[in-house]
Amino acid sequence: MLSPSDHRPAALIAGSAVFPHRHLTGIEGLQPHEIAFLLDEADRWVEANRTHARGDAPLAGLTQINAFFENSTRTLLSFEIAGKRLGADVVNMHAAQSSVKKGETLIDTAQTLNAMRADVLVIRHMSSGAVKLIADKVDCPVLNAGDGRHEHPTQALLDALTIRRRRGSIAGQRVVICGDLLHSRVARSNILSLTALAAEVRVCAPSTLMPPAIERMFVQPFTDFDAALEGADVVMMLRLQNERMDGGYVPSPREFRLRYGLTPERLKCAKPDALVMHPGPMNRGIEIDSVVADGPQSAITEQVAMGVAVRMACLDVLTRRARGVEGWA
Amino acid sequence: MLSPSDHRPAALIAGSAVFPHRHLTGIEGLQPHEIAFLLDEADRWVEANRTHARGDAPLAGLTQINAFFENSTRTLLSFEIAGKRLGADVVNMHAAQSSVKKGETLIDTAQTLNAMRADVLVIRHMSSGAVKLIADKVDCPVLNAGDGRHEHPTQALLDALTIRRRRGSIAGQRVVICGDLLHSRVARSNILSLTALAAEVRVCAPSTLMPPAIERMFVQPFTDFDAALEGADVVMMLRLQNERMDGGYVPSPREFRLRYGLTPERLKCAKPDALVMHPGPMNRGIEIDSVVADGPQSAITEQVAMGVAVRMACLDVLTRRARGVEGWA
Amino acid sequence: MLSPSDHRPAALIAGSAVFPHRHLTGIEGLQPHEIAFLLDEADRWVEANRTHARGDAPLAGLTQINAFFENSTRTLLSFEIAGKRLGADVVNMHAAQSSVKKGETLIDTAQTLNAMRADVLVIRHMSSGAVKLIADKVDCPVLNAGDGRHEHPTQALLDALTIRRRRGSIAGQRVVICGDLLHSRVARSNILSLTALAAEVRVCAPSTLMPPAIERMFVQPFTDFDAALEGADVVMMLRLQNERMDGGYVPSPREFRLRYGLTPERLKCAKPDALVMHPGPMNRGIEIDSVVADGPQSAITEQVAMGVAVRMACLDVLTRRARGVEGWA
Repeated sequence: MLSPSDHRPAALIAGSAVFPHRHLTGIEGLQPHEIAFLLDEADRWVEANRTHARGDAPLAGLTQINAFFENSTRTLLSFEIAGKRLGADVVNMHAAQSSVKKGETLIDTAQTLNAMRADVLVIRHMSSGAVKLIADKVDCPVLNAGDGRHEHPTQALLDALTIRRRRGSIAGQRVVICGDLLHSRVARSNILSLTALAAEVRVCAPSTLMPPAIERMFVQPFTDFDAALEGADVVMMLRLQNERMDGGYVPSPREFRLRYGLTPERLKCAKPDALVMHPGPMNRGIEIDSVVADGPQSAITEQVAMGVAVRMACLDVLTRRARGVEGWA
Repeated sequence: MLSPSDHRPAALIAGSAVFPHRHLTGIEGLQPHEIAFLLDEADRWVEANRTHARGDAPLAGLTQINAFFENSTRTLLSFEIAGKRLGADVVNMHAAQSSVKKGETLIDTAQTLNAMRADVLVIRHMSSGAVKLIADKVDCPVLNAGDGRHEHPTQALLDALTIRRRRGSIAGQRVVICGDLLHSRVARSNILSLTALAAEVRVCAPSTLMPPAIERMFVQPFTDFDAALEGADVVMMLRLQNERMDGGYVPSPREFRLRYGLTPERLKCAKPDALVMHPGPMNRGIEIDSVVADGPQSAITEQVAMGVAVRMACLDVLTRRARGVEGWA
Repeated sequence: MLSPSDHRPAALIAGSAVFPHRHLTGIEGLQPHEIAFLLDEADRWVEANRTHARGDAPLAGLTQINAFFENSTRTLLSFEIAGKRLGADVVNMHAAQSSVKKGETLIDTAQTLNAMRADVLVIRHMSSGAVKLIADKVDCPVLNAGDGRHEHPTQALLDALTIRRRRGSIAGQRVVICGDLLHSRVARSNILSLTALAAEVRVCAPSTLMPPAIERMFVQPFTDFDAALEGADVVMMLRLQNERMDGGYVPSPREFRLRYGLTPERLKCAKPDALVMHPGPMNRGIEIDSVVADGPQSAITEQVAMGVAVRMACLDVLTRRARGVEGWA
């Protein structure tokens, strides 16, 4: 039986001093050692998941509500599995069938979930900032499962965990993030976490999909993918949303692939052992070629596995205070 | 560890004599002491929910099927959380994806759920009487989660519990129910339960939304909201469904608010400490103003919390016979 | 407490030699004794379900993902209840909200579910062969919950169990399967299992709905239903999908009923105690008359109950290797 509550070095039992936050609404505002703490916790769950070991069900008796105002199969599944493995009573609220459609305000929905005594809320919303708004109104911890173009912190944590496990460390790694940076909360959260952890981050996009003044986020912008890839340890591709493909952003999917798709030839511009990542779901043949996605350098399915572990860690850590875990009161 | 099976006065262990019903299809047909018994049971779960105490999982091993033929986020969530907190295996059947769409009859669906050995069925349906029809065909207890314009008994119970806890008792309280009475199963169930418990019930609506001969339900009808509110202990607002707003029922939402919206000024017609209630989701600025909904007299979020407790009580009580609880055989 | 792991004759503990398959993608490829083994296992769960006995939760700590790319209320409910009764963490993935809509390939979805460490996958898909494709890509057991026009093996198993329990044995029984054979995976799986178990199988359909060269499946084809029914022990009706009713297949529902509907008069052509079966949901008054569906010869609701037991047996058996059950390593 493996569980993070066992085997923890006495020093860490100091508890909430290590991670004093009530919510996880974004990577912004987290200290590097706090991010590292979440990754350490997640590391333990990776092992527990592989051995099918069921811990002591630390969240037994707690109610986790996944309130998804925007559809998402993968992230919802990942949070649902994470919560159930920890023993929580997991309840999904789908927006498509929700009071939101009846014109209820977001705050009213939040207060309703709170009044049902959710012990932890996992929120996805199409509007940037909506998750923070809810977090301010409820008594329980809130996890951001993606809000608008703002943040998707557990995605950044699972990406960081994948890199740390595969490359030994994050500091000093040259990470290239390529694709639709303008609309991507995944890119935003990753830039925040990777720069905090002292990686060298390069971003690459056509100028129509490059956010203005992105240098202020301590990254180096490129429009030439080959140049960006030079010496890269990690290549992180972003999903090109279908709705961007036939608009003003990209001439055509084919054109986009030619300049920004990760082909086997282009991958050779990076280091020979560079890691290939993608948050999924992939547009094979557009932003990434199948031979690369399925090749030996790909960490794409490993990212999915890390996702469950990271979410278990976040759910566990954020509920410790309410559960009265020693040191977290 | 708190659970209704502990701490129960010996006198009550007599059991099923106190509540001999197999189903909860409506408030109609319940004796005042039976309603009071359900409220007493719910009172205990309120406390258990607040302290995060998990009882002895009385419904462990039982299958609760929530069959919702009409969408409802709040009520479904509330029943799902209630069942899971009691330890039941909770399964949701959404009508949108159901055999109903393939033309299956309601009775066939009921028999299917029964054959899968549901231990308790929670049914919501758009047709009045559909829940009773199902209850007659299955072997397990059935709870009505709202059927057409007929009844919504757990809503009435949670409202009664809220009033009883906040005002000390229900008998003698002057309760004003205002809004779309014609289409409201919430109003109907509340009238039945509140009059049974000896409240003085006034109803208020424009004549287009007033059911004919409502006096026969032992309530006093008003079309003038100010007059109805005089001396009120409780003001219960109903939701104005969007589909009524631009039809023959109400000239316009704005007009409706002017005459029947609960504004701060109008609330002054009631007693100074009158309780404000709404079953949600609210149309803020139409039937109720935000300053009232969020004000010190509002019990609206408390109603939501009472909802989970009331549903736990009903699920627990109705499954006692099948579980062989002493005195309920 | 009843559970298949108790009370098992020592001879069977030999284990995986009795059922060496990793997946259940179809009846095709199963030996008669393997089918019989699954029915024996299911028999035990029938009893456990009736007595509300909860076994030792053999699947506790395991994650069962129901990935339904095609809507199905009954089969999904049945698998969900089966998994929960066994103690599994059951998670539903609905295709309507899934990455599939975003253009993700089926293999990518399979690899994602695998990476989240599903311990058992239950798949329904509109394309024949899709389930096998997924089974080849994942590390865990896969159960086919219906794929295109190919197979629906648990339906065939529950039908076989129903016949065996009601008629004492399957061998030598004359079974007539009538209806839309051309599009029916239910018919295909049933023909495979019933012929393997030495039943005499007759199939009956209008020529437009009769698959070519069906004799090669060791069945006798009829277009005249009365002739087919002569001496029948079991009459298994198929659902006529709405979309076939006003096309080139059938002149009209009324016409279809006249020639292929199971009316009380027509049922008299079969043996007096012939069993009547239907996989549901029924079109009452089209392929089957109500008086027959609800009559004393009908086993239709019993089929539903057998469905839960059969699915519990399959989930239990297929996960034994991963759970390290003695003899299944």
